[in-house]
Amino acid sequence: MKPDKNIIFPLGDKLPNDNFNGETWLKMLVSDDKIYNCPIGNVTFAPGARNSWHRHSGGQILLVTAGNGYYQEKGKTARRLREGDVVTIPLDVEHWHGAAADSWFAHLSITPNSRTNNVTWLEPLTDREYAEANKS
Amino acid sequence: MKPDKNIIFPLGDKLPNDNFNGETWLKMLVSDDKIYNCPIGNVTFAPGARNSWHRHSGGQILLVTAGNGYYQEKGKTARRLREGDVVTIPLDVEHWHGAAADSWFAHLSITPNSRTNNVTWLEPLTDREYAEANKS
Repeated sequence: MKPDKNIIFPLGDKLPNDNFNGETWLKMLVSDDKIYNCPIGNVTFAPGARNSWHRHSGGQILLVTAGNGYYQEKGKTARRLREGDVVTIPLDVEHWHGAAADSWFAHLSITPNSRTNNVTWLEPLTDREYAEANKS
Repeated sequence: MKPDKNIIFPLGDKLPNDNFNGETWLKMLVSDDKIYNCPIGNVTFAPGARNSWHRHSGGQILLVTAGNGYYQEKGKTARRLREGDVVTIPLDVEHWHGAAADSWFAHLSITPNSRTNNVTWLEPLTDREYAEANKS
């Protein structure tokens, strides 16, 4: 499967499915080092692909560069995302993100405060939760 | 003048010409706060527009989202930039960036370590320096 969208940044390598459901790719653009304290990756999702519920102790920033997708915080309605949208994910807030069922999706992922920012992966999104998001 | 390129993120407001030569716009996507420590702006340059020589005490990261431009460090040859290119600007290194003479140009600008990252603006780029860059 190949993106039908204009993906600006490189696709990179396929991610293992431990915390992702569906086909996803990651290309690190800025590595996690001691100088910038701010690793940046380009994440691409095939239609229907998404990650599991998770949280970041130091927050995360998403910049949408192509396609349509969703961002949802636990207990809230999913937010539909389009090219040019920005998501600032607060510290320790449980959430997921991924493509819409009918669209490729790409976002830059910025991990601020990386020296002290840990991710905690939780349970996979259920098919029902994902279907509900796609109604919004 | 309006961009002829597909600019993904909003154009924002025109920048004053104190440290920029030509028409440039800035839209802050993530503000500089105490949570993320990592402000992000979208900078758009009309053809021929560029900034003055400057340096950042905590470095800077550029992610090119549209058009063609240049990044040059003092004493080095200018690097031609295209959509999808990434520039990590080291701490305290004197440099400039901007559009090619014949192209619109847009990049995300990420300021890591913002709590301690100061910018020092220096002299404008000369027309000769800019013309030289455009030969590369």
